[in-house]
Amino acid sequence: MQILYSDAHKAHHPQHFVVSGARRPSPEVPSRAESLLSAARAAGHPVVEPAPCGLGPIAAVHSAEYLDFLAHAAERWARIEGASPEVVANVHPNGRTVGPGRGGYPANVVGQAGYHSADTACPISAGTWPAAQAAAACAVQATTLVLDGAPAAYALCRPPGHHAFADMAGGFCFLNNSAIAAELFAAPGRRVAVLDADVHHGNGTQGIFYARGDVLTISLHSDPARFYPFFWGYAEERGEGAGLGANLNLPLPKGTDDEAFLAALERALRRLKSFAPEALVVALGLDAHEDDPFKGMAITTAGFGRIGAAIGALGLPSVLVQEGGYDTGRLGENLVSFLAGFEAAHPGFPSG
Amino acid sequence: MQILYSDAHKAHHPQHFVVSGARRPSPEVPSRAESLLSAARAAGHPVVEPAPCGLGPIAAVHSAEYLDFLAHAAERWARIEGASPEVVANVHPNGRTVGPGRGGYPANVVGQAGYHSADTACPISAGTWPAAQAAAACAVQATTLVLDGAPAAYALCRPPGHHAFADMAGGFCFLNNSAIAAELFAAPGRRVAVLDADVHHGNGTQGIFYARGDVLTISLHSDPARFYPFFWGYAEERGEGAGLGANLNLPLPKGTDDEAFLAALERALRRLKSFAPEALVVALGLDAHEDDPFKGMAITTAGFGRIGAAIGALGLPSVLVQEGGYDTGRLGENLVSFLAGFEAAHPGFPSG
Repeated sequence: MQILYSDAHKAHHPQHFVVSGARRPSPEVPSRAESLLSAARAAGHPVVEPAPCGLGPIAAVHSAEYLDFLAHAAERWARIEGASPEVVANVHPNGRTVGPGRGGYPANVVGQAGYHSADTACPISAGTWPAAQAAAACAVQATTLVLDGAPAAYALCRPPGHHAFADMAGGFCFLNNSAIAAELFAAPGRRVAVLDADVHHGNGTQGIFYARGDVLTISLHSDPARFYPFFWGYAEERGEGAGLGANLNLPLPKGTDDEAFLAALERALRRLKSFAPEALVVALGLDAHEDDPFKGMAITTAGFGRIGAAIGALGLPSVLVQEGGYDTGRLGENLVSFLAGFEAAHPGFPSG
Repeated sequence: MQILYSDAHKAHHPQHFVVSGARRPSPEVPSRAESLLSAARAAGHPVVEPAPCGLGPIAAVHSAEYLDFLAHAAERWARIEGASPEVVANVHPNGRTVGPGRGGYPANVVGQAGYHSADTACPISAGTWPAAQAAAACAVQATTLVLDGAPAAYALCRPPGHHAFADMAGGFCFLNNSAIAAELFAAPGRRVAVLDADVHHGNGTQGIFYARGDVLTISLHSDPARFYPFFWGYAEERGEGAGLGANLNLPLPKGTDDEAFLAALERALRRLKSFAPEALVVALGLDAHEDDPFKGMAITTAGFGRIGAAIGALGLPSVLVQEGGYDTGRLGENLVSFLAGFEAAHPGFPSG
């Protein structure tokens, strides 16, 4: 399978995030992408660097206000006396109290950082914006390949994207690469499904398409009642307006193993087939693995192969977009297992 | 003027908050209340400790969900391995993306802390809940004295309250003492005005009464476009539903001096008179002072006397509730200046 990868991610190297009030080193480090890349190469997958995609496909899912903030936040922050080296929000609108006529948009970068961030896990430095754009370019070029006839392509995106809303960063994510890919499929009138297999709920993707009937969003994840992102991912979130019934959340207990995950995936795929999509985006987190530091599930390396096979067997034109998954020594192996299972089951591949 | 004060505030001693991404010592320290108390005593004002007020008047403005969280957060947080000594939120719903059917309420304390806090300036320790209740009791007993015929009373509340919403802490505040006083006046059908003179917008108070036509909320403050609380306090926030037209925000430029503040106060008092309130709550921040570390305005000590006189001249039954104001060596003096101006102008006092 064609791999899309750019070295530009290395410029984004977040130092810290806060966990239960305590500052910890960020696990969303450049070596994640290096592990994924070398394992994919060793397994024989060809790798290409994408061309820049420009702002067009990014602005199709993110607000101009937010993109303006992302592009200039680091330089504006650096002018604040005594500020931290990275942009980290500390005051939030927490907006059930903000709405039309109930509150406004601040002019300074401290206020804007709070408006555009859900948490402390998305620090912005000078390298963040170019890295995020390069990750989006991987997703865009993977989608172009599939639109041009490839059965599937894999975008090795870093930073990841599925926690990014139209105007808000969160959980290591800035630009929603999966949503950018889905919108490229959907814009000319195609029906597209996004299937999110990351251990965390795909809250940003859900938010972006929540009122849309042409994009089905499905997420399997550790129950948010006690797991990030806490406020989204509950079964009762079903979409709204034209999108009512086009969002499916399958929260699963901590410690969910291969068998239980595959049973939930079967439900997800039944719903997906009822939507009759013309294309598929897989938000491919690998952090449901049993060794992942977030400990949300207990999927094995072989389990990822079975998950890949179940999804590949749909036979849909598919863009696989890398989301979470942290470096445990098994990360690359988990990707290779997923891709092998996917290719073996997908009728568009020689082995499938 | 009768002063209501309780030593219980000392149990709440927040250690840190985050400013532009950097951790700093909290300025909301017990010595603030000690400075205010000793200056008021030295000026001859009598001091009494309030009786506990129970949860009734507090639950009249705050949600049961939020009060349950406040009462138990510290002990639940202490059970998390590796957590910080104080409850400090790091992940927020940032809820323009949360709403009916769009997101949920988490079960664990990390998620709940994010749901119930706007920022890092309201850390919770074991002493926070008793201190916040004692501050509310000061406001309740001051209101009772005024309902019983006193022309005015002063509640020396610490922690302060005006940034606390019905279900959210923020900006050093947990229970909204000013709103609790206002609701005691309003509940039996009285028309009441809250006039907020703190240098920061009274966002919590505004939020609590935003859809109410029986409580007029007015706030004079440094322009939120570049000043905390950033998301609220803009002139276009005028109330909603039955409360439309019953909220007035007067954002003022940084460096606003006595003359400019008094001119804005004249506009505020004109609006207030049009509402014909039967009682007044003054959310009395003293952080508009020229030496205050937040540097939002440049009011002089003599200026506070003139502000007090303008408000006292309304002649309304008045509860004065301490909000912000940080220890500069002038804090107590500023309070005494305000109270002297107020009493001299209020017809209910011998000197008035």
